[in-house]
Amino acid sequence: MRFVIVTTNKGKAEEFSEIFSGYGLRFRVEYMRTPEIQSEDLGEIAGHSVMYAYKTLREPVIVEDAGLFIDALNGFPGPYSSYVYRTLGVSGILRLMDGVVDREADFLSVIAFYSPFTGLKIFEGKTEGLIAERPRGVSGFGFDPIFIPREGDGRTYAEMSVEEKNRVSHRGKAARRFAEWVKTLRDEELPPPYR
Amino acid sequence: MRFVIVTTNKGKAEEFSEIFSGYGLRFRVEYMRTPEIQSEDLGEIAGHSVMYAYKTLREPVIVEDAGLFIDALNGFPGPYSSYVYRTLGVSGILRLMDGVVDREADFLSVIAFYSPFTGLKIFEGKTEGLIAERPRGVSGFGFDPIFIPREGDGRTYAEMSVEEKNRVSHRGKAARRFAEWVKTLRDEELPPPYR
Repeated sequence: MRFVIVTTNKGKAEEFSEIFSGYGLRFRVEYMRTPEIQSEDLGEIAGHSVMYAYKTLREPVIVEDAGLFIDALNGFPGPYSSYVYRTLGVSGILRLMDGVVDREADFLSVIAFYSPFTGLKIFEGKTEGLIAERPRGVSGFGFDPIFIPREGDGRTYAEMSVEEKNRVSHRGKAARRFAEWVKTLRDEELPPPYR
Repeated sequence: MRFVIVTTNKGKAEEFSEIFSGYGLRFRVEYMRTPEIQSEDLGEIAGHSVMYAYKTLREPVIVEDAGLFIDALNGFPGPYSSYVYRTLGVSGILRLMDGVVDREADFLSVIAFYSPFTGLKIFEGKTEGLIAERPRGVSGFGFDPIFIPREGDGRTYAEMSVEEKNRVSHRGKAARRFAEWVKTLRDEELPPPYR
């Protein structure tokens, strides 16, 4: 099934493309803003956004929503991570975490997919990690310079290549779950425009 | 015109009631959660919420959205003030403002009203002020203990009675603008259930 990745974030588009190309999937990226609801449930946010994107494009489509949930900050910035990145930035998070011993955090990714043949499908990925004491690295985007995934070797996301980050990242996990599911669909059962 | 105030916040309900009673308006409070969109425009958020509330209640209805916009934090926490209050709290904002000289902030309130006779109407109120160095007072709710309105006498919102806060507050200003507009409507032009 051909599908469209809807995002406004070049970094996300690059990470998805690396994974989906590896699976031989057929997709394109559409840089389009979709309205988001305020919710603490990423699946609900992405689900609403993907329905909007589908109504506009009328093609099978995915929208992803992600968030950094810091234990010591009661889950902040969570679903509002991109707003908090734009206003407080990495330095604001480090300020809130200054002297805080518990540095545990989860990065969550939720991919919402919609097509009329499959209905709405949700795929999740979660990576546990720690908030670094200071930013390290220049790759990726957002809070990547201060997130050290537990499954890694102590480097932050921003110190990894796209391929390395995808191997351990929340988004990589959600993307592989989606890709594996897409591979199970039988193209011959779809109407021609969607094959 | 009779109308419904939709909120989940007892403090807001109390402030609105104090003002609207003074104008002799006929209203009731409905404690109901409405979905909110993610936007940096309070009018857009309140406008969407009020349409949802109207579809549920089928009565003339107001929904208010408010936010604290701190200059030195690029407008943070803005439209996400209630989420930030629940996660970081007053102490998180004070931490972000520790040692920050520019303490200017605006509190904004946007009331969205909808009835089929009037369509969607938006009323705004804005109060300029300063972020206190430490919390003072126990009245009100949210970030009231650290907001010192410029029009006041140096006390925070949380050191004021409901009446005192309403006189200078963002919400009081929006509510009076709405109340004055409601008074201009001619009840005899409305169908009986809405008079």
